[in-house]
Amino acid sequence: MQRASVFGSAGYLGGELLRIILGHPGLELAHAVSASHAGRPLADVHRNLLGTTDATFSDAAPAAVFSGSDVVFLAWEPGRAQRVLVETFGAEPSSYPEAGPRIVDLSGDFRIADHAVYERAYGRAQEAPAWQSAFCYGLTDLERDRVRAARFIANPGCFATAALLAAGPLARAGLVASPIVVSGVTGSSGSGASAKPGTHHPTRAAAFRAYKPLVHQHEPEVARELRALGAPEATDLVFLTHSAPLVRGIHVTVTTRIEAARTREELVALYRETFAASPFVRLRDEPPDVSPLAGTNFCDLAVFARAEGTGTRVVVAAAIDNLVKGGSGQAVQNANVMLGLDERAGLGFVGLHP
Amino acid sequence: MQRASVFGSAGYLGGELLRIILGHPGLELAHAVSASHAGRPLADVHRNLLGTTDATFSDAAPAAVFSGSDVVFLAWEPGRAQRVLVETFGAEPSSYPEAGPRIVDLSGDFRIADHAVYERAYGRAQEAPAWQSAFCYGLTDLERDRVRAARFIANPGCFATAALLAAGPLARAGLVASPIVVSGVTGSSGSGASAKPGTHHPTRAAAFRAYKPLVHQHEPEVARELRALGAPEATDLVFLTHSAPLVRGIHVTVTTRIEAARTREELVALYRETFAASPFVRLRDEPPDVSPLAGTNFCDLAVFARAEGTGTRVVVAAAIDNLVKGGSGQAVQNANVMLGLDERAGLGFVGLHP
Amino acid sequence: MQRASVFGSAGYLGGELLRIILGHPGLELAHAVSASHAGRPLADVHRNLLGTTDATFSDAAPAAVFSGSDVVFLAWEPGRAQRVLVETFGAEPSSYPEAGPRIVDLSGDFRIADHAVYERAYGRAQEAPAWQSAFCYGLTDLERDRVRAARFIANPGCFATAALLAAGPLARAGLVASPIVVSGVTGSSGSGASAKPGTHHPTRAAAFRAYKPLVHQHEPEVARELRALGAPEATDLVFLTHSAPLVRGIHVTVTTRIEAARTREELVALYRETFAASPFVRLRDEPPDVSPLAGTNFCDLAVFARAEGTGTRVVVAAAIDNLVKGGSGQAVQNANVMLGLDERAGLGFVGLHP
Amino acid sequence: MQRASVFGSAGYLGGELLRIILGHPGLELAHAVSASHAGRPLADVHRNLLGTTDATFSDAAPAAVFSGSDVVFLAWEPGRAQRVLVETFGAEPSSYPEAGPRIVDLSGDFRIADHAVYERAYGRAQEAPAWQSAFCYGLTDLERDRVRAARFIANPGCFATAALLAAGPLARAGLVASPIVVSGVTGSSGSGASAKPGTHHPTRAAAFRAYKPLVHQHEPEVARELRALGAPEATDLVFLTHSAPLVRGIHVTVTTRIEAARTREELVALYRETFAASPFVRLRDEPPDVSPLAGTNFCDLAVFARAEGTGTRVVVAAAIDNLVKGGSGQAVQNANVMLGLDERAGLGFVGLHP
Repeated sequence: MQRASVFGSAGYLGGELLRIILGHPGLELAHAVSASHAGRPLADVHRNLLGTTDATFSDAAPAAVFSGSDVVFLAWEPGRAQRVLVETFGAEPSSYPEAGPRIVDLSGDFRIADHAVYERAYGRAQEAPAWQSAFCYGLTDLERDRVRAARFIANPGCFATAALLAAGPLARAGLVASPIVVSGVTGSSGSGASAKPGTHHPTRAAAFRAYKPLVHQHEPEVARELRALGAPEATDLVFLTHSAPLVRGIHVTVTTRIEAARTREELVALYRETFAASPFVRLRDEPPDVSPLAGTNFCDLAVFARAEGTGTRVVVAAAIDNLVKGGSGQAVQNANVMLGLDERAGLGFVGLHP
Repeated sequence: MQRASVFGSAGYLGGELLRIILGHPGLELAHAVSASHAGRPLADVHRNLLGTTDATFSDAAPAAVFSGSDVVFLAWEPGRAQRVLVETFGAEPSSYPEAGPRIVDLSGDFRIADHAVYERAYGRAQEAPAWQSAFCYGLTDLERDRVRAARFIANPGCFATAALLAAGPLARAGLVASPIVVSGVTGSSGSGASAKPGTHHPTRAAAFRAYKPLVHQHEPEVARELRALGAPEATDLVFLTHSAPLVRGIHVTVTTRIEAARTREELVALYRETFAASPFVRLRDEPPDVSPLAGTNFCDLAVFARAEGTGTRVVVAAAIDNLVKGGSGQAVQNANVMLGLDERAGLGFVGLHP
Repeated sequence: MQRASVFGSAGYLGGELLRIILGHPGLELAHAVSASHAGRPLADVHRNLLGTTDATFSDAAPAAVFSGSDVVFLAWEPGRAQRVLVETFGAEPSSYPEAGPRIVDLSGDFRIADHAVYERAYGRAQEAPAWQSAFCYGLTDLERDRVRAARFIANPGCFATAALLAAGPLARAGLVASPIVVSGVTGSSGSGASAKPGTHHPTRAAAFRAYKPLVHQHEPEVARELRALGAPEATDLVFLTHSAPLVRGIHVTVTTRIEAARTREELVALYRETFAASPFVRLRDEPPDVSPLAGTNFCDLAVFARAEGTGTRVVVAAAIDNLVKGGSGQAVQNANVMLGLDERAGLGFVGLHP
Repeated sequence: MQRASVFGSAGYLGGELLRIILGHPGLELAHAVSASHAGRPLADVHRNLLGTTDATFSDAAPAAVFSGSDVVFLAWEPGRAQRVLVETFGAEPSSYPEAGPRIVDLSGDFRIADHAVYERAYGRAQEAPAWQSAFCYGLTDLERDRVRAARFIANPGCFATAALLAAGPLARAGLVASPIVVSGVTGSSGSGASAKPGTHHPTRAAAFRAYKPLVHQHEPEVARELRALGAPEATDLVFLTHSAPLVRGIHVTVTTRIEAARTREELVALYRETFAASPFVRLRDEPPDVSPLAGTNFCDLAVFARAEGTGTRVVVAAAIDNLVKGGSGQAVQNANVMLGLDERAGLGFVGLHP
């Protein structure tokens, strides 16, 4: 058993990390760190864990947690992970101990290495630029080999995961033409565990609205990665985000025009091939629904096409659970790959229907 | 046109008062008081009012508001109305100006005249006991004559309104036997306009749970009024409250055993007679649903019965919109009756289906 | 008072027509036709109307309904209106009586005059081609003058209404460049009043999915009308539709690239000017939400822009109630314009918040 | 591995049986019978099973299914199980083969042995009275020993499970006084997998209403079992059922007056002792919520009390997942007990939060 620890373990992503680790055949929970809940049972906060564990929250210091773990998950609010790494290990990742645990950061602190792009996306300067360059972007299903070789993983954002799994195969195949339009929808759990006006039930329960139009912080992350996968430098990305009266779920519909004539069957074959080694990506004939994915690490995809002039209009619909495949599940999947475990270990949760 | 003012007008009850007053043929809006939003359009807060009014929030002082109004609605958080009345008019209601406006308080400050009962219900001492004795309990449909003669109305609580319209006719007819069990359910708008853990969408959207079992502050209000209507002093009242993933709506199911043998038809006739003059109480054959009542001032009732030994088991189901019939609508209905207007004025909102 | 009749009055669009007509100062209800409910009170089916009317459903024959009405609303399922008009008045609209009532069809039967396009959209041949050429597309806010002169109105589809009010001003101003991407979301009431698998609560309550990707029947309607408003013939339209766990509401986000450099302010000014005479179109600074629009005839719009190369990326978000502005409300708005009434008559419903 | 088969496997209870059996360490799926889906993958119907099994639906005849199974679950619509048992094995259970599999019926056909009571509850005569006398009522947590000795189990209804686990300990301790009032709420999945008016999303999404007041078919089942547990013959049971806009979940609040003076702590101790051997019953301090129970076999209980005259008013709140603890989970729990497996086997599903 390898030892796993979680910082920020009282939040929603932290709770899902705990649920997955507690049921993982190759990981054991070392520290569930939450200073504000130290000493209390995990189930006081994560009510679903009642009766499944007697473990309690810890307030161990970072140095102790790192030295007692084989993998550490950072599920803090944005900004904190970069500060803690610098405080604990210095400004340079080269000073990180050889035998130190693998790190998976879920906060977004290390997703963008470019200083200017980071600042534009997050509205503040990088505080650990050397670290930010050292992290590997952990989109497991498209970057498995890089993940396997990594020690530090920047876990992709929830919208970015869905958008990139939907559009990535086209980019890699050199088929993308500008613009790529991504229209995405998120449930309320993406806003975190603290009550706030945007998640006040009376006004959220029957609401649907766009938010952060043209300025969402995940857009540069998606744009950067699409180029890394092969999209031309000049590709315009239009990222439209909406909030829906769902609790869990991200749904994105991606559309672009490819210059070549391609049938739907040819495109489906491309996707099948791209994800042949990915147990969590499921190609569907019908548009996928977020509902039966709650709690699972699946990304369901469906690809549609029709002729548009001499080229092809492509539509790809993708659905995930934002907290699992778009967060803690993919984080454990990355840890599994880095630690040499079965990629599926701990991630066998079967969703519910209805 | 008579002049109506609202204190606490940025809350949900305040917003519904404004909506009703702005569409009322006999009232005109004098002051919509909200110090924290003073100068801003009402529609900035109450988004449904956009395009229907250019009025703005006011920060006028109580004395100015009272002297410029024919009726004043107090929709503050609990505790404030009693302090403001004492500060503005002194400890004795006898010092209230002869020509002062009618007052309708929606906060609960004046629903219970008895000091000890008040303290047990609200967890603090009365701060304006002489005022508390001077207010008339405004359950219009069962107390129309008392309301007509009143100057100061304590508007009933939302749960209490539904429970009393359901059980009141039995109490008045001398049919109640102990215990009366009231099982009630409320939507999230009853928690007010501020985000709080209990109304956080991720945990509320699929939740159903009891709350404040055996200690809900509306229980003594219902018990007191049932006795006022004729229930025996020794009647035990069991008040069970639950929160449901609704936005608007209170539903109560009341059950008691009456000693006499009564058919369902006889009981329905009793209810019809009791509410013959009440345009907003609708007797239904089928159990009522809260859904089509949103925004309306209706209370829908259905009465069921079966023999139980030598007596009769009675079940009454009642549904209302908690913010309207259980709040601002009944407040305006009370104002209409006090001011000599048509009781239905301003309350003709037809709900939606679906 | 002018006489209004409704065919298909037991459905959701029919119910909203009845609600609006019953509260309309210039219309009186002549016939609420529903053969299957003939003789029963309207409120048996449309529960919100209880206590507001004693009217009953009628099974009057079309000839009698038309001869006793000044305006007739056709809210049948698709296919029936064209058959009934031919049966009643013959294949040629020229045989329609001079003094016959204005007609507003809500079913889609008359939205597309072109035979081939119709057949592709609806999967069957036109059955009343001469009539289909005689109907005027009733997008009131962009076609007020044509509506005023019309006798027969094809009421726009719900998605089409939102998409065209969002994109129409750009098309008319000659600013549209290909492609226009419309990403839309609908609530469940758009599926009608009959229970069906897609609206089964257990599977719909937490569902979000795309549907009819690249083949939605509203796409050709939108494409045709955008060209009529000025979009170049070669504009590609990509129409992405999704179902959300809402009851009421259509939300569309439209994006296109315009060749010219335009600031957000310039575009907002264009929209303000375009809709200067439209009381129901509200320009907002923030992305609009469907929730407070339930029951209202408003279309809320917000326009966003950023530079994209030498041109401008434009995003327009639009929200409506699918049954009102996207159906029965716009139908009455069209009737008002045709009959010379105040365009706003009967449509003053103020929505609810929350 | 013991072989388990499911009849009625395309319904919601059938789907949950399949999910549990497929993850059960001691059971293997023999037949998932559904004539109408024979040959199709289970995941075509139960979308959550996609990627977890390649099994298909079978149309094997009852005789073949029974002879190839160690336990058979009957999840048919009411009425069918009794007919099939008589057709397959004759009118007398004594002709059932010695080596035949254990049977768990989930349909209600065998919950009530008394002819007259059955007929009143279900509105039709028993068709297999000898079988109906041979089945053991499978309320595992209160009847573990009887279940262990049984071959044929009548699985309790969903409402009955929650009501009996809430009230049973009082009945067994001789504390119940008349009346017992049970106020229950159910989600929409209890209506089954077929779309019907009561589960039409537009009218169900914001609905709350009582249904079957005073005539619910689970009432005699609860009354009979309460007496079996020790409640006096003359105890009046009042069973109030409501539908809420939940998908999964049963919540009941039970109240009764006990003659003796008991503190809350004494009552909690009674419940703890009663359920000491029950891993799935969890005593809580706070009122339980249905939300984190989805998919789990837990029943969460909370007990409250206050003095009422010389006796004690008791309130017990109980929450379960209607399809699992109120259906398929309890069915497998019963099978585990009968087959000598760990009672918890296959039932370790950890719910989700949020």
